[in-house]
Amino acid sequence: MEIRIVLVEPEHDGNVGLIARAMKNFGYDDLWLLNPKARLGPEAISMASHAKDLLAKARIVQDLEEALKDCDYAVATTAIVGRSLSNLARTPLSLREFAQRVSGLRGKTAILFGRESKGLNNMEIAKCDIVVTIPASSNYRTLNIATAVSITLYELQTTAKKEAGEFERASKEARYRLLETFVKLSKEAQLPPHRVPLTKRALANVISRGLISKREASLMIGVIRRATDRIRLRDTKRAHRD
Amino acid sequence: MEIRIVLVEPEHDGNVGLIARAMKNFGYDDLWLLNPKARLGPEAISMASHAKDLLAKARIVQDLEEALKDCDYAVATTAIVGRSLSNLARTPLSLREFAQRVSGLRGKTAILFGRESKGLNNMEIAKCDIVVTIPASSNYRTLNIATAVSITLYELQTTAKKEAGEFERASKEARYRLLETFVKLSKEAQLPPHRVPLTKRALANVISRGLISKREASLMIGVIRRATDRIRLRDTKRAHRD
Repeated sequence: MEIRIVLVEPEHDGNVGLIARAMKNFGYDDLWLLNPKARLGPEAISMASHAKDLLAKARIVQDLEEALKDCDYAVATTAIVGRSLSNLARTPLSLREFAQRVSGLRGKTAILFGRESKGLNNMEIAKCDIVVTIPASSNYRTLNIATAVSITLYELQTTAKKEAGEFERASKEARYRLLETFVKLSKEAQLPPHRVPLTKRALANVISRGLISKREASLMIGVIRRATDRIRLRDTKRAHRD
Repeated sequence: MEIRIVLVEPEHDGNVGLIARAMKNFGYDDLWLLNPKARLGPEAISMASHAKDLLAKARIVQDLEEALKDCDYAVATTAIVGRSLSNLARTPLSLREFAQRVSGLRGKTAILFGRESKGLNNMEIAKCDIVVTIPASSNYRTLNIATAVSITLYELQTTAKKEAGEFERASKEARYRLLETFVKLSKEAQLPPHRVPLTKRALANVISRGLISKREASLMIGVIRRATDRIRLRDTKRAHRD
C-alpha cells in the first residue's frame, strides 16, 4: 500500500521537519502540504536532519481536492472522540484497528493531519472515507502533530510487517533439543518425577517468551550436557567399583 | 506496571518538552534527566504545552545508578542493531515484542533513551537488563529522541491494554540467585572457564527477555541445585573411598 501524508495548514516549521524525518525513518516519502502557514526554512531543515530531501520534494497545494485526487482512500485523523464526531455518525477507528485493516491493502491512501491549533474542520473530515484516532489519556488528548504522524507511520509499518525478527532465533528443533537435554539432567539429578514436566514447562515458557537465539540455546545445551555427563560418569565409575 | 523514562544527557530543550507532552498524552509522569545538557527553559516549556507540570517535577540526577536504584528492570533503547550488539551476545527485542512481554508486569521499569548525538554508550547499555529497538528503515535508522519516546509509550499503552494474565515476575534477587546457581553448576561440570561468563550472559539474556516468573525461576533453581549437589556428592564419596 502507498501512503501519502497530507498536512493541512501546518503552522510550525519544526514540526514539518520532524515529520519529514519520521517519514524517512519508516520508509515513506510522499509528503504534501496544503496551504502551509509554516515555512520550510532553517528550523524545518534542522529538524528534518537527514531527511532534507523529503522536505525539498514536498508538494505544496492550495486545495484539498487536489491533494486527494489520485488517492483510493482518504483518512482523517482526530484527537476528538466525542459528541461532535458521533453527531457526524462517524465512528472513528483506533489507529491499531486501522493498521490491522489496511495491512496488505493495495492502492494509495492519503492520511490527513490537521492544524496544530485546531485540527481538521468538519468539512475536511467529511471529505474523508475513514476517521482514525490515536487513543490517549483523557487528561490530555491532543498529541503534537509530529508525534501523531510518527506514531501513525510506526504503527502502519509494524503491523504490516508482522514482526520479522532481525536476528537468528533458535529453530523449533533447537528449542526442543534444549528442553530434552534439560529433562535428561533433571532425571539424572533424581528430581521427583512429578516435578519433571512442570520444570520442563517452566523452561519452555521462558525460552519462548525470551525468543532465545541460536547461540544462546547452544551455550545452554553445552552446560547442561556436560553436567549430565559428569553425573553419569560418576555413576558408572561407582558401579564399576562396587 | 510503573514506567520511568530516563533521558541520558539530553541535548535539546525542545525535545525534553515534547517528551513531557507525550508522557502526559499517554498517562505517564515519572521523568528523570541524567546529567542534562538541555535547559528546561522557554523552548522546553513551549513544546511541553499542557504538560509543563511534568517538566517542573522532572528529577535531575548525575548518576545512572541513582536513576535505576529502585527499579526492577532497566531497559536500554538503541537504533543500532548490528554486529557490535550481537558480539555482546545481547539480542535486542523489537519494541512490539517488548511491549507484548511486559504487559501485566508488576514493579517499576526504567526505560533509558540516549543522547541525540550519539545514543547510549556501551557501559550504559551493559547496566540494563533488556535492549529494545524500534525497527526503522535501513536508509535512516536513527529516530529523533522525542519521536522514539512517544512511539514507545504509545506501544506500551496500546499493547498492554490488550493483554491480561498478570503473574508475578521473579525479583531481581531471584534472577541473580538463578544465575549464580547456574554458574556453580557450570563449574562443577568443569566447563572451560572462559565459557562460564558467556554462558551466564546467555542465560541472563534469555530470562530477562522472557521475563521469567517467580515460580519458573524457583523450578529451574531446584533442578540446577539438585544436579550440582549430585556431582558434588559423587566427588565427595569418591574422595572418601580413594
